[in-house]
Amino acid sequence: MTVKIGLVGTGTVGGGCIDIILNHKEDFKRHLGVDIELARVCSLDSAEAEARGVGHLFTKDFNDIINDPDIDLVIELIGGTGVAHAIVTGALKAGKNVVTANKALMATAGEEIFRLADEAGVEIAFEASVGGGIPIIDPLKHSLISNEISSVLGIVNGTTNYMLTRMDEDGMSYDDVLAEAQAKGFAEADPSADVDGFDAAAKIAILASIAFNSRVVMSDVHTEGIRNIQPIDLATAHDMGYVVKLLAIAHRTPEGIDVRVHPTMIPEEHQMAKVNGVYNAIYVTGDAVGETMFFGEGAGAGPAASAVMGDVLDVSRHITMGIPPIVGCTCTDKLPIVPIDNLQTRYYIRLVVPDRTGVLACAADVFARHDVSLRSVSQEGTRARDAVNLIFVTHTASEANIRAALAELDAMDDMLQAEPTVIRVED
Amino acid sequence: MTVKIGLVGTGTVGGGCIDIILNHKEDFKRHLGVDIELARVCSLDSAEAEARGVGHLFTKDFNDIINDPDIDLVIELIGGTGVAHAIVTGALKAGKNVVTANKALMATAGEEIFRLADEAGVEIAFEASVGGGIPIIDPLKHSLISNEISSVLGIVNGTTNYMLTRMDEDGMSYDDVLAEAQAKGFAEADPSADVDGFDAAAKIAILASIAFNSRVVMSDVHTEGIRNIQPIDLATAHDMGYVVKLLAIAHRTPEGIDVRVHPTMIPEEHQMAKVNGVYNAIYVTGDAVGETMFFGEGAGAGPAASAVMGDVLDVSRHITMGIPPIVGCTCTDKLPIVPIDNLQTRYYIRLVVPDRTGVLACAADVFARHDVSLRSVSQEGTRARDAVNLIFVTHTASEANIRAALAELDAMDDMLQAEPTVIRVED
Repeated sequence: MTVKIGLVGTGTVGGGCIDIILNHKEDFKRHLGVDIELARVCSLDSAEAEARGVGHLFTKDFNDIINDPDIDLVIELIGGTGVAHAIVTGALKAGKNVVTANKALMATAGEEIFRLADEAGVEIAFEASVGGGIPIIDPLKHSLISNEISSVLGIVNGTTNYMLTRMDEDGMSYDDVLAEAQAKGFAEADPSADVDGFDAAAKIAILASIAFNSRVVMSDVHTEGIRNIQPIDLATAHDMGYVVKLLAIAHRTPEGIDVRVHPTMIPEEHQMAKVNGVYNAIYVTGDAVGETMFFGEGAGAGPAASAVMGDVLDVSRHITMGIPPIVGCTCTDKLPIVPIDNLQTRYYIRLVVPDRTGVLACAADVFARHDVSLRSVSQEGTRARDAVNLIFVTHTASEANIRAALAELDAMDDMLQAEPTVIRVED
Repeated sequence: MTVKIGLVGTGTVGGGCIDIILNHKEDFKRHLGVDIELARVCSLDSAEAEARGVGHLFTKDFNDIINDPDIDLVIELIGGTGVAHAIVTGALKAGKNVVTANKALMATAGEEIFRLADEAGVEIAFEASVGGGIPIIDPLKHSLISNEISSVLGIVNGTTNYMLTRMDEDGMSYDDVLAEAQAKGFAEADPSADVDGFDAAAKIAILASIAFNSRVVMSDVHTEGIRNIQPIDLATAHDMGYVVKLLAIAHRTPEGIDVRVHPTMIPEEHQMAKVNGVYNAIYVTGDAVGETMFFGEGAGAGPAASAVMGDVLDVSRHITMGIPPIVGCTCTDKLPIVPIDNLQTRYYIRLVVPDRTGVLACAADVFARHDVSLRSVSQEGTRARDAVNLIFVTHTASEANIRAALAELDAMDDMLQAEPTVIRVED
């Protein structure tokens, strides 16, 4: 039989998928016994479909795909939670298997999507939603299932990892490196999803849900981005033996799931510290396997299309063999989310304060009154003549106390000249 | 239904599997809908089974497992190609699914084993045969199937990687570090399988067979070990910007499959260069995914048992759902093996020669007459008063010419005082 595919979205990743189907169709027949056919292509504009020689399959209306009884599998690659939601849920309700790269959708509407897939007896696959081409969802659902996973750490946003690497290696300012990333096409004109950590939050929500067998949605993830990071923070980290990464973190704890995204210091010798530029990596710790890491390119036409088409072929193999969905929703437990205030860790905090006698003592006193024990305090110049950086490194402290101290400092007249830079330490 | 398991081999890994089954049985029911039961345990001695509380399941005769009609799945963990061959083939012929960690068996009798599994309509799974707990076979058979894989590079032997790391970081001699590895239990009393590269050869044969869809057996792999490596080689490599790893290498080339295991210089900045100690890593390059790496612990009870039990649970899920084998033998092409003599690369060659005027010129002349263009020649002292190290680094040269030159040097009277150290460069 031939598995007929409807593709929605012909941008970078969709184009990569079309190329793979056209170039490797005969290989897939020979190696996998799977005959896939691109039956319909949907997008806002037919130009990309025409450029790739599939203009004759083009439609502007995704309902032409959903309502086509011949189509077995729908690939959704437009992203977002609006039209994409209608496409994915519509396709599932119409009894079609769905492959998507949509992290925002899976991290917000995952429960509904799995329920619809289950009711229709079809598959929903989403390997490309996390880590680009890196196989991570499939290993978590297969190879690693004998483990109780204790933590998942991810460098899962290539844009911010590129920016941090440039700031670290070349001392560029946040603003300059953002402008460069935008010029190179690594960052969007509105960079918020990347630099504010939302993209990483969606991805760790998906990974945590699978790793811990318990639903984690995007709003469960405490999320901070890299806007307050400057080269001085990266240089100070090196002095301490650390590098700074925007880390997506999920820990299984006795109190529940601790899940967050924020700039994080990790030891220079850790394998994750060496993941630079646009590369991604996911570090998984399990009770049997110990520590394992999955590394690769986190974005781009090829890597993302590799993951999408891996799913398409795996599902097509099942369709061809008449095999029902094997792994559906994996959220078989209901674990609570640990509030961020409960966190206990070490903190690096940089305050920009007036260059005035007594400010350091005053700030140190605020931390002391909130039970935050300081390991070191140092003062460094800023570009501004009348302001200095005060850099505090704490012993293990409670997040609630840190927040209370920072709120008190923020409420003081003529104290903080900028938002505090807070970097947590993960050892 | 309950999936009944017969386990053969109760050593380190078998013990780890028993622990996982006993500790996580209820988790597997809840999360995976799979009810597994350890029904029989076979070993030479009942002590280990008794120590883990499963003495009542013990038998000394593996035929008690193969002939037990109630057993659905056999785990083979005794290793080697003798009795293990009888167990695996016997179990398959008896219609039982098989999970094994046996790299030597899969790399020599893989074709027969797949045929028997296919004839019986059962599954054969062997994730643990390569890379300990690292998921690599499953990703190659699923997530990465939309790619044409162009190369697989592996640090797949933890013993030699530990030894090379110690020699590199601490300047220990080969003999001292081998003795230490044996004392720590990382190396066997007879270390040949590790230090001569045979273990790595079996593993790259398995990986190449899957990655290139064409059968590669152990005897196809050109194999050299690390016996001739000394700290001076590692130090010189650093001077050149490289580190030395025992690399298992498989390339798809226009002439066929280039597959080999030997000490290799890789650039210090490469992600694989940072894989130290007993860790393993497999680096896969595909036409869509680009570069991706899988990292983790390559040996030990927990990691290997994680991989074995991942296979056991995946197969058990299929058995429970009545799903036939999905992926059988993947060797759907027949690609030739490229002879090692065809290799073109750069070489580091260290010769131990008499400390005598004219020897350097003589050796350089031999290389020149065999069309080997030298990039640098240097002379370093040895521990022996009357011998020196001559270190040659070549431009790209042909393996056939290198071998001819070394053979000519070897035939000379009073020239080579030890086997030449040959390290190929992989950029």
